[in-house]
Amino acid sequence: MMKLYLLLFLYAISFSSFSQNNVLVFQSDFGLKDGAVSAMKGVAMGVSTDLKIFDLTHEIPAFNIWEAAYRLSQTAQYYPAGTVFVSVCDPGVGTARHSVVLLTKSGHYFVTPDNGTLTLIAEQLGIQEIREIDEVKNRRQNSNESYTFHGRDVYAFTGARLASKTIAFEEVGSKLPNEVVKIDYQKPVLENGVIKGGIPVLDIQYGNVWTNIDKKTAEKLGLKAGDVVKVQVFDGAKKVYQGKLKLVNTFGEAEIGTDVCYFNSLLNFSLAVNQGNFSEKYKVYSGAHWSILLSR
Amino acid sequence: MMKLYLLLFLYAISFSSFSQNNVLVFQSDFGLKDGAVSAMKGVAMGVSTDLKIFDLTHEIPAFNIWEAAYRLSQTAQYYPAGTVFVSVCDPGVGTARHSVVLLTKSGHYFVTPDNGTLTLIAEQLGIQEIREIDEVKNRRQNSNESYTFHGRDVYAFTGARLASKTIAFEEVGSKLPNEVVKIDYQKPVLENGVIKGGIPVLDIQYGNVWTNIDKKTAEKLGLKAGDVVKVQVFDGAKKVYQGKLKLVNTFGEAEIGTDVCYFNSLLNFSLAVNQGNFSEKYKVYSGAHWSILLSR
Amino acid sequence: MMKLYLLLFLYAISFSSFSQNNVLVFQSDFGLKDGAVSAMKGVAMGVSTDLKIFDLTHEIPAFNIWEAAYRLSQTAQYYPAGTVFVSVCDPGVGTARHSVVLLTKSGHYFVTPDNGTLTLIAEQLGIQEIREIDEVKNRRQNSNESYTFHGRDVYAFTGARLASKTIAFEEVGSKLPNEVVKIDYQKPVLENGVIKGGIPVLDIQYGNVWTNIDKKTAEKLGLKAGDVVKVQVFDGAKKVYQGKLKLVNTFGEAEIGTDVCYFNSLLNFSLAVNQGNFSEKYKVYSGAHWSILLSR
Repeated sequence: MMKLYLLLFLYAISFSSFSQNNVLVFQSDFGLKDGAVSAMKGVAMGVSTDLKIFDLTHEIPAFNIWEAAYRLSQTAQYYPAGTVFVSVCDPGVGTARHSVVLLTKSGHYFVTPDNGTLTLIAEQLGIQEIREIDEVKNRRQNSNESYTFHGRDVYAFTGARLASKTIAFEEVGSKLPNEVVKIDYQKPVLENGVIKGGIPVLDIQYGNVWTNIDKKTAEKLGLKAGDVVKVQVFDGAKKVYQGKLKLVNTFGEAEIGTDVCYFNSLLNFSLAVNQGNFSEKYKVYSGAHWSILLSR
Repeated sequence: MMKLYLLLFLYAISFSSFSQNNVLVFQSDFGLKDGAVSAMKGVAMGVSTDLKIFDLTHEIPAFNIWEAAYRLSQTAQYYPAGTVFVSVCDPGVGTARHSVVLLTKSGHYFVTPDNGTLTLIAEQLGIQEIREIDEVKNRRQNSNESYTFHGRDVYAFTGARLASKTIAFEEVGSKLPNEVVKIDYQKPVLENGVIKGGIPVLDIQYGNVWTNIDKKTAEKLGLKAGDVVKVQVFDGAKKVYQGKLKLVNTFGEAEIGTDVCYFNSLLNFSLAVNQGNFSEKYKVYSGAHWSILLSR
Repeated sequence: MMKLYLLLFLYAISFSSFSQNNVLVFQSDFGLKDGAVSAMKGVAMGVSTDLKIFDLTHEIPAFNIWEAAYRLSQTAQYYPAGTVFVSVCDPGVGTARHSVVLLTKSGHYFVTPDNGTLTLIAEQLGIQEIREIDEVKNRRQNSNESYTFHGRDVYAFTGARLASKTIAFEEVGSKLPNEVVKIDYQKPVLENGVIKGGIPVLDIQYGNVWTNIDKKTAEKLGLKAGDVVKVQVFDGAKKVYQGKLKLVNTFGEAEIGTDVCYFNSLLNFSLAVNQGNFSEKYKVYSGAHWSILLSR
């Protein structure tokens, strides 16, 4: 008898990281000036008032699927396993793109159109299983006449039902192959003593420039705190910036106004002016056509 | 005995939509840059930490009562019955306007100055009962010296007490007649094959233009997906835009950059550029002096 | 026996205002456009999903410690005792400034770098006890490689553990002297029939100008509603504005467009244009170098 309990216990433990925890996180490109985000939360409250609802951001630039993908990869890992994310950046609303729920190997759920939004999170947290949302069963009542607000009528509704365990993951809909639609992007590479990488995003509040060159790749070049790094930034083929920057652990190590490089809170190589704005100072921005070269 | 239980059960059901559910939603023109919104939530937490607090928006343009009215009508219906909304857009704070709580026929509560904010929601959800807030009983302790922040001292406090069932609706204050202060606006009309309507608001994040012409009125003109609609937009007497637009179900049906018309998520006739900004492209904005004509 | 219970009860009461209440409030200069704020909330949810999380504001201008200090003093008092505030405006992240938790005499907790952020709240609510965060014990697991996001790895983590009673206040770390780092500012003084004060902040949403001259100091000059007040505003030595303003209880007492003065929701002397923008009209802004003179 004890043995049976033990087995059940171990079984429960082994699946615990996949069990929803009532935490529901919304991301969108809706902004906060109108009622769209609030309508989604209202739908969720209609499903269960036990949900704990948070925002990732709603200031994704309109239709910018890449940035939606980036924000998920920047944030989701800090929420406990079982958290359900609803991401609505959906320029193709009403077209043939799949509406899916991704369960990652880490036990996080992502409810979204499969339009590239899952590019980075699928790589980062791993694909455990993907299901297509059955919009006949998983759709807010009386919403069939509205074609343009899937965020409210399908994604918020399904996310809320999943997070609150009103439905099990299996009830989302049929299983899909373990693949997501991916956006191409420059991964960091080290060749002949030069690291090439991309600039996926700015730390806009401070004007810092975040590359996708991770600390481990940088360390292969032997870079460590105190070193001077030769940095070149390109917009397509055009060189926009060239300079030598000191690699610091913390901004406090440099004078105010000094250009520095550092590893950001995601441990990616980044450029900053201490208490200033690197992006504005040198007109360096972010996106798929921006690249960066590092050497000693 | 069974019969009695059944009666009690039916009685309970019939009133269940009027019972508060601990959900409290704030709207204001305060913005999010200072501490005003947070102070209101602090007052609510002081009433009950069981409350589930949400924002509709706090980016109502300063003193724009019409937009406050519009945002309530866009959003409230998606929250479950029993939800309490506190709306503070109150240019006349401290003057003789009534402070009221409206209970709608749908079972939603609205705590607000009666200054036009209730114009649309009263029509949309129906007036069940209105009570004037008794500011002697329903006012935060030690707040009598502050005349200018009723949002915090009266509305948030009363909304929180109501949502948490600390007080019953009857304890808000005396009953008022079933009438609210109304803002005049152009309702949609069909005459001689032409529909006239208003442009209450823009879908600002995307630059789409939202009219108040509902799908049913449009269908009386025989309009259906795939049709071409003749559209004229006026700022007062001045014609600002004239064009022929394809009526689409979803943006995905049109090329990127194409001008289209569609029914928005509230099923109102709207104008858009697919993945562009109709408002900026044609300098079409919203407000009481804007009107639109539709014909085949 | 009864007596013992009574004693225990009284003991419990006497300390109840110092007991955490699961309410956690975040403030920062991160903005809401990226995932930083959400990452902090994720960390908090990982500590306890029972927490009730709120925002003060995340629109503190980057590195503006003074404004962070001001927003705490504007808002914290409206939250119930036991609430834990996490404030992250931390230009010196990674340098030698102390990371502390302040418990005020009012029973509120403030988790922050001790860099001036506590200037006003310490005066306003009183210092009960200060402890330095032991970053070995009170640091998110596996976060040792990240030097630049103490907000997420130390402050959010510690605030969440404290608010949820995962740790007692004593477990934060060692006791420090009852002193905080202070920013110098002009306190209001009355001399020879003239009140001198500062302009710590604008009511930015409306363009009202908020001084730090409290109602009691103003009343020493005999000022009461209906009086005309002579006002001079200086930017350093340069006089920017001079005028005579009627002191009103509520904006409703004045015509739309009229310049008035009033006591704001914190009962501080303030300047406004009724339904207009005083700051823009007269180019009056705020900060340590702005001052104001009042006389009859």
